[in-house]
This record gives sequence, C-alpha cells and structure tokens, in this order.
Amino acid sequence: MADENTVYIGKKPTMNYVLAVVTQFNSGSRDVIIKARGRAISRAVDVAEIVRHRFIHDAVVKDIKIETEVLSGEGGSTANVSSIEIVVSK
Amino acid sequence: MADENTVYIGKKPTMNYVLAVVTQFNSGSRDVIIKARGRAISRAVDVAEIVRHRFIHDAVVKDIKIETEVLSGEGGSTANVSSIEIVVSK
Repeated sequence: MADENTVYIGKKPTMNYVLAVVTQFNSGSRDVIIKARGRAISRAVDVAEIVRHRFIHDAVVKDIKIETEVLSGEGGSTANVSSIEIVVSK
Repeated sequence: MADENTVYIGKKPTMNYVLAVVTQFNSGSRDVIIKARGRAISRAVDVAEIVRHRFIHDAVVKDIKIETEVLSGEGGSTANVSSIEIVVSK
C-alpha cells in the first residue's frame, strides 16, 4: 500500500496523529496505516481507537500486525525493537 | 477462552511476563492470551514477540484485538483507556 496512506507515530501529542489520520480519510483514502515502534505502540493504539470512536464512526480496524525490527547501531551492535502496524479502513 | 490461559501485563520486567507465557505453553495450553491496557500495551507486544522468536518457535500470533475500556472514577468521572488482546497459539 502506498506510503502516503501511512501515519508514523512518534512522540508528539496523540491528537496530532489523530488529526493526520482523519485528514487522510477526508482526502479520500479508504485505508490508513498507523505504524509505530517501541513505546509509541501504546499511542498508536490510542490513535486508532480515538479516530474510530470520535471522528470516523464507520471506520473499522481491518488488520493488526506486530513484528520485531532489528536496528543496527554503531560498531555492529544490534537491538531488537517491536513494531505494530494497524490498518484502519472505512 | 478460560481465564487461566490469560497473562495480564503490568509494570514488572518484561521477562517476568515472557516466563509466564512460556510456562502456560509448557503446561499444555495451545493458546495464550496476552492482555494489557494503556502504556503496558507496548510491553505486551514485546512479550508476544520475545516468546515466539526466542522460546516457542512454532508459536504464531493468531489474533490481535484493540478496544477502548471506560474506567469509572470517584464521583462519576470516567476515563477512556485503550487495551490490547494478543492471542498467541502453537
């Protein structure tokens, strides 16, 4: 699915990301993908829930995937971080 | 599904919950449900990922659900909190 439908969750206030998702839907997207890693995963779930309960009442959670991403640091060290991908659809 | 197959994620170290899930599988459960609310949601995803990558290699994520729970406080106030339910199966 195109990257333009994807909202990456970071450390900004939750409502910023809610607005980004709602804007995607209002500009004609049928699916919006919410992605997050690490501690931002909880916020991603909040965003999906707020969007469908308060703003886009006919939106549903179509799919949720979790996986482990391997981040490589300096000197060849690696760290594992969990990620989530929530597909919200209307 | 029976409550005995459910591991609730709180504020303890992640590996405590990983051990609880692995113990459930080793005592014969085919499905283990990992539940969390609020900020513990990220940890729940970590637990599921660590269990299936490091300990129970034939385990798969069978289902993931997210929802909003309404908590009622004193004096009739309410707060919404997101929750997640991850079903890991082998």
